[in-house]
Amino acid sequence: MRHNAQIVPGTKSERTRSRILAMAAKEASLRGVGSITLGGLADVSGMSKSGIYAHFGSMEILQIAVLDFIAEQFAAQVMTPVLSAPNGRVRLKALMSHWIAWSESAERPGGCQLIAASFDYDALEGPVRDHLADQVKQWKDFVRQVVQDACAQDATLTIDPEQAVAFALGLYTTQHIERLLLDDQTSKERALHLWCDYIDRN
Amino acid sequence: MRHNAQIVPGTKSERTRSRILAMAAKEASLRGVGSITLGGLADVSGMSKSGIYAHFGSMEILQIAVLDFIAEQFAAQVMTPVLSAPNGRVRLKALMSHWIAWSESAERPGGCQLIAASFDYDALEGPVRDHLADQVKQWKDFVRQVVQDACAQDATLTIDPEQAVAFALGLYTTQHIERLLLDDQTSKERALHLWCDYIDRN
Repeated sequence: MRHNAQIVPGTKSERTRSRILAMAAKEASLRGVGSITLGGLADVSGMSKSGIYAHFGSMEILQIAVLDFIAEQFAAQVMTPVLSAPNGRVRLKALMSHWIAWSESAERPGGCQLIAASFDYDALEGPVRDHLADQVKQWKDFVRQVVQDACAQDATLTIDPEQAVAFALGLYTTQHIERLLLDDQTSKERALHLWCDYIDRN
Repeated sequence: MRHNAQIVPGTKSERTRSRILAMAAKEASLRGVGSITLGGLADVSGMSKSGIYAHFGSMEILQIAVLDFIAEQFAAQVMTPVLSAPNGRVRLKALMSHWIAWSESAERPGGCQLIAASFDYDALEGPVRDHLADQVKQWKDFVRQVVQDACAQDATLTIDPEQAVAFALGLYTTQHIERLLLDDQTSKERALHLWCDYIDRN
């Protein structure tokens, strides 16, 4: 039975770990990955601080586990739907709409944890910053690949991939600031319009 | 003498206040406006925590004073030079180069405090968030006015002001993330190229 318990996924310990990470991801949306505290997680989970700590062993390991948890959600909610759209201009446009929808989801009431963390960690050193930078690079690589695939599939599409990645990231961050800090609800449509116009024009 | 001390600018008390704010602005660049602590300022200034606190009276008042200190620097280092460039495409291009130079300055080793704070405060309530949102709105108004003035001066220039503001903010944030988090030193030139291309094309 002990043998079975070790290989069966979804043990009680794993479920508790997932529950902690889901709460920590929400905290990260509201206050930032670097502002997650054991006390804060204990308050929202009803668990003890030592009980939470025991699942990770250090705050850095917890923060990296939260980033990985968020990255898994991002892959399922953004990357997979983007790749299921037809290659070409359609997929490029789907990329921006799924990405913005991610930042609007009720799962993250303070918006996208990854973009917020990008500004919190840009002047810090250490494994959390390095992990985050890898994740942002991987997302940029994904966007670049979608652009390259679209250009390869459709000869009428002539976009410089590196510029397209910078442009997309810029539109995403702008709608984030305008919508969440400035309460500007016209911002999302403006970002989508600018992106689609860029895709159609090139 | 007491009367004179109160009205003469640059009193010892004012100079100390400015010195605290300059250090706090640097801390805000590295760790965020919301992460400024009396202990941290005491460490870098050699002053006592109570001595620093006495100049402001609350952490919120200190944070708002830091935002105002940063806004004064921003006006002097970005807005004034932009307005000294000739109205039209030249001024529009100068806007992006002065803005990016601000984020690269040695005075702010962790980059632009205002863009970082925009993500830290977007899910928070209170006077610091409101003050920051007003400052970001004022900068957006400034950019919009520069676009409108340029279009009024040069009939060959046809740019939608709201889109131009969103595009400019996006390019600025992208070069910030790419340069500071991802150590991508090609990013600044890409942002300037995309902006100048946008100005020349429209």
